[in-house]
Amino acid sequence: MTQIPTELSASVYRVRVGYVDTDQGGVVHHGTYFRYLEHARVELMRERGLDYKRFELDDKLGLPVVDASIQYRQPARFDDLIEIKTWIAVANRAKVRFDSVVMRRDVLLTQAAITLACIRLPEGKICSMPASMIALADASVRNLRGVRTT
Amino acid sequence: MTQIPTELSASVYRVRVGYVDTDQGGVVHHGTYFRYLEHARVELMRERGLDYKRFELDDKLGLPVVDASIQYRQPARFDDLIEIKTWIAVANRAKVRFDSVVMRRDVLLTQAAITLACIRLPEGKICSMPASMIALADASVRNLRGVRTT
Amino acid sequence: MTQIPTELSASVYRVRVGYVDTDQGGVVHHGTYFRYLEHARVELMRERGLDYKRFELDDKLGLPVVDASIQYRQPARFDDLIEIKTWIAVANRAKVRFDSVVMRRDVLLTQAAITLACIRLPEGKICSMPASMIALADASVRNLRGVRTT
Amino acid sequence: MTQIPTELSASVYRVRVGYVDTDQGGVVHHGTYFRYLEHARVELMRERGLDYKRFELDDKLGLPVVDASIQYRQPARFDDLIEIKTWIAVANRAKVRFDSVVMRRDVLLTQAAITLACIRLPEGKICSMPASMIALADASVRNLRGVRTT
Repeated sequence: MTQIPTELSASVYRVRVGYVDTDQGGVVHHGTYFRYLEHARVELMRERGLDYKRFELDDKLGLPVVDASIQYRQPARFDDLIEIKTWIAVANRAKVRFDSVVMRRDVLLTQAAITLACIRLPEGKICSMPASMIALADASVRNLRGVRTT
Repeated sequence: MTQIPTELSASVYRVRVGYVDTDQGGVVHHGTYFRYLEHARVELMRERGLDYKRFELDDKLGLPVVDASIQYRQPARFDDLIEIKTWIAVANRAKVRFDSVVMRRDVLLTQAAITLACIRLPEGKICSMPASMIALADASVRNLRGVRTT
Repeated sequence: MTQIPTELSASVYRVRVGYVDTDQGGVVHHGTYFRYLEHARVELMRERGLDYKRFELDDKLGLPVVDASIQYRQPARFDDLIEIKTWIAVANRAKVRFDSVVMRRDVLLTQAAITLACIRLPEGKICSMPASMIALADASVRNLRGVRTT
Repeated sequence: MTQIPTELSASVYRVRVGYVDTDQGGVVHHGTYFRYLEHARVELMRERGLDYKRFELDDKLGLPVVDASIQYRQPARFDDLIEIKTWIAVANRAKVRFDSVVMRRDVLLTQAAITLACIRLPEGKICSMPASMIALADASVRNLRGVRTT
């Protein structure tokens, strides 16, 4: 996961580490990365034409996180400018997985794989991932089997 | 505000400071107190017979914060056991104000005054504070003028 | 406080509201604004030549919040692009006060006054605000009485 | 991981879900669980005789998270009383892994495995896990090979 697969397109989200993001260990708290990764996913979607705010409001669908795996290699610190490179590694009717590397220049700080399922709002019932979401993935990782495309 | 007015009843909420609550200054981040104060208000309401979860679900009302004033005297630190003493200082059709002191044993750490208004959910329109909410206040601070009590 | 005093220079910090910044009321949680305001202060300092990271590391000084006052007028929502305009309203040996308005285009969402004192790190003892910090303020609000300028 | 291995002792940490812990999806934000899990680890340590605050202050050691894996099955909601059952699944000179299940009564909400390494403070250099930490684990998962026990 550390290397961005060369055949997949990645989006880049840049963020300045805030004071509030740190803990008394003097580094970014491990839970803070979920904030950065979430911003990175929303921006990847926007870049590829899906406005997540409208997705919830118009399509009455939500994308809850169902699985997260994250490895912390080096700490980020207050005021660091970091880059989160994110790509879609899996996309099918059951789930979409966003993989990310968090970098400070060319130093790998953290890598993560975040898997989202699709639910109908407001009840929260699991449903098929819509074609509009799967379409954001590179063709090589898309699997449209069983997905309604109307 | 530092002294709990002797004629008003106060509720006590105890919390252990988490590692995540600190920042690289080695103390609790100033924004974290809003988390503690919110928990303290919810528990005061519960103690006096109002379940805030039901208030939102059944009455379709919400209590957004409209004003907050907070003074930081001494820092709280990781693993401190702190007490938030909270009382209702103002209660009328327009607003309810919760005043709090945050203590570590007999040391005053922080004091705050948090004012809530009432809105109709989900539109978010301002409405009169219901009698059920004003009734939580001590008689001496309650003002029911203009409040529908049915 | 709502109007930026015309004779004072303001800095602008822009931020996109994250999903994590919201609560189940469907709006930005009142505590989240402290995150935005802190970022805004750090960027104002940087813009005017003070790197807060270096301030802590090199000068062994810190700027804890000692007082915060905030009024919430309109809610911010997920994905909103908001602007925090911040200026220094008071600067003397005892404290520096940063005033801010949080805007969504021309709608005032929130206004705040955040007062910082100066401490020596790591002990946390209160000390005089250094001239380097007071110098960031406009001349009309600066008061250097009793401040060592060497 | 879902079942607590019957031969391992688990600690229980109870927490009331706060309003601030939710997001506009109406459920607890996925990042919030790291807060709960961290509290649960600190309390497990305390229960078994290790005061993590003193560990940092006296031994000048820290326990950063190096790996986290978490599966979200059912959402937690505002005001839920939830239980985090935590046990040590791996303990050796390189790392200690804390496994947890987050339950609402008998419903499994979330399960997680959080791996910590040991560093020397304040430099942050990786070092061997001390015997005092490994000793918190049940005998069946302890591996003291290469650990200095003085």
